[in-house]
Amino acid sequence: MKVLVCGRCRNYWTVWLEGCRVRLIDQTILPYRFRIHSCRNYLETADAIKTMVVRGAPAIGATAAYGVAQAVRQFRGRDKRKLDSQVRKAVKALASTRPTAFDLFYALDYMQSSLSKVGSVAEARRMAVEASESYANASAEKCRLIGVHGEKLIKPGYNILTHCNAGALGCVDYGTALAPMRFAHYSKKKFHVFVDETRPRLQGAYLTAWELQQEGIKHSVIADNAAGYYMAQGEVDLVIVGADRVARNGDVANKIGTYEKAVLAKENGIPFYVAAPSTTFDPKIRSGKDIPIEERSPDEVHLVQGKRITPKNSRARNPAFDVTPAKYIKGIITEKGILKPGKLK
Amino acid sequence: MKVLVCGRCRNYWTVWLEGCRVRLIDQTILPYRFRIHSCRNYLETADAIKTMVVRGAPAIGATAAYGVAQAVRQFRGRDKRKLDSQVRKAVKALASTRPTAFDLFYALDYMQSSLSKVGSVAEARRMAVEASESYANASAEKCRLIGVHGEKLIKPGYNILTHCNAGALGCVDYGTALAPMRFAHYSKKKFHVFVDETRPRLQGAYLTAWELQQEGIKHSVIADNAAGYYMAQGEVDLVIVGADRVARNGDVANKIGTYEKAVLAKENGIPFYVAAPSTTFDPKIRSGKDIPIEERSPDEVHLVQGKRITPKNSRARNPAFDVTPAKYIKGIITEKGILKPGKLK
Repeated sequence: MKVLVCGRCRNYWTVWLEGCRVRLIDQTILPYRFRIHSCRNYLETADAIKTMVVRGAPAIGATAAYGVAQAVRQFRGRDKRKLDSQVRKAVKALASTRPTAFDLFYALDYMQSSLSKVGSVAEARRMAVEASESYANASAEKCRLIGVHGEKLIKPGYNILTHCNAGALGCVDYGTALAPMRFAHYSKKKFHVFVDETRPRLQGAYLTAWELQQEGIKHSVIADNAAGYYMAQGEVDLVIVGADRVARNGDVANKIGTYEKAVLAKENGIPFYVAAPSTTFDPKIRSGKDIPIEERSPDEVHLVQGKRITPKNSRARNPAFDVTPAKYIKGIITEKGILKPGKLK
Repeated sequence: MKVLVCGRCRNYWTVWLEGCRVRLIDQTILPYRFRIHSCRNYLETADAIKTMVVRGAPAIGATAAYGVAQAVRQFRGRDKRKLDSQVRKAVKALASTRPTAFDLFYALDYMQSSLSKVGSVAEARRMAVEASESYANASAEKCRLIGVHGEKLIKPGYNILTHCNAGALGCVDYGTALAPMRFAHYSKKKFHVFVDETRPRLQGAYLTAWELQQEGIKHSVIADNAAGYYMAQGEVDLVIVGADRVARNGDVANKIGTYEKAVLAKENGIPFYVAAPSTTFDPKIRSGKDIPIEERSPDEVHLVQGKRITPKNSRARNPAFDVTPAKYIKGIITEKGILKPGKLK
């Protein structure tokens, strides 16, 4: 089965609602197997976010929206107040899965605000599905526009560095950082992508390499340690990464290691761009200092594919994200165009 | 069996000569098993360097010295010219194992120059063993002195970052970057070490964590991506790394990723030190640009413990070292004291 997750030749979105089920491409077993994961209720959907069956800020947002729709759809009864209470429970469960990606909270707010407008349970059922579908469609469209705007940055012959997976798998479709590369590829530009493997969870090696391969985009996976080397050698022309949350001043939280690449890009005079839809911009947060950073289980460092790489009694630490201050960022590629950091409020 | 490779409570050196055999701690299976690897002739010794049974610039140097001694010891006959030819063959085989670490070439020069002073095969046999033992002893002593000088940099309560393994395992004994930490620990200073896991070969996770654990030094293994995060959080007070080759101007080649940490340390106002004996200083090389950088098999990136982490047809690239320009280095800790980069010629 050929599986392409992209705008042009798509068989699957990363996440969708099918009856009362939220279905997801299982990102914990790629690139080895392509499997659809099915969540029977909002608790299972929350669990899929928590265990990273789905990851990437825009994809998490859409999954959460579908999770709320699922909670409403599965509600039995006619008491609107009881439904409201069920929705609040679902929102709480979904909100407590992961702390850093802003799209999660944006999507939950969007769903709650949509549902607050209806008076009956029947109306709510319709509205919940409609709102979640509309959220996912809009999310995909934003990423498409990111591709359209960002593609202009890619010149023929470029070597582009990316970190983690900010592709279609991290979104509903197209991707954020990878969207410009897809569109450059569709318009027959020749370029090459350095893919940071992105320890500890290896989303670069597992997911970005897989996506680029599906598209036929030339790429090389490198140890995260090697990115600076290629920059210093003059072999990187452009860096594009995704984002989990953008503060008002333009500081960006993204996958651990992003900050390192941004500092190195600046040091080597290489333009560093972040690609993110407006749903990743948190208007309440002034600067990156206030963005909550998730610390995940040390086992993600200790174990690679279930096998321990550290001595038995050694300790490990595992911050999942870091903050890149706005001063290292040349621009943020959004659905509205390429903005100077701090300009989308 | 308790195994400690250090000055105070040593059971083993990293490498030694026993009769005609070069014996080595097998660094390809630590921290899982402690095993002594035995090389029956100089070709096996060369192979042990090439396949990284032994690694780390000073350890490679001593292993090469022993390899030459082994070639001389195993020579059958009385014809000094035939012996000279055997020595040249051994030197050539040992020199072609790995291109970056300077100690290798330093040790081979030292052995050839020692052997050039003798007139007979019998004398050469004695001299070869003596010279190799003296090389290894001097190498251990240099590292001990690096420990003595470097210890002063470590203040109680410090968090120190290190990259790769520049411990006793990478030397004959004591280590380079880890020697100051051993001595600080022996003098009861309390401190904590962030250990970069050091992809692709994970020498931090496998070897440095193991050594620190043997010594009882508090440490946390982190993904290489997380070092910058802890620096930006103000949680790193000092960085000490080893070196594979130091150019005349003070530029330093070391394990891939070192350059990244150096740039980040500078950006965050954290002192960045290199620890290296004088045998790592290449007087013929003017700047880091001229240091040959080994590109190793892409399989080191593709596979972790034999299991593939990249999609089947994805390409990988794997430079084993990078160059840190002198401007990022606060000082080089040598057996002669702590020098400004470019001051040991």
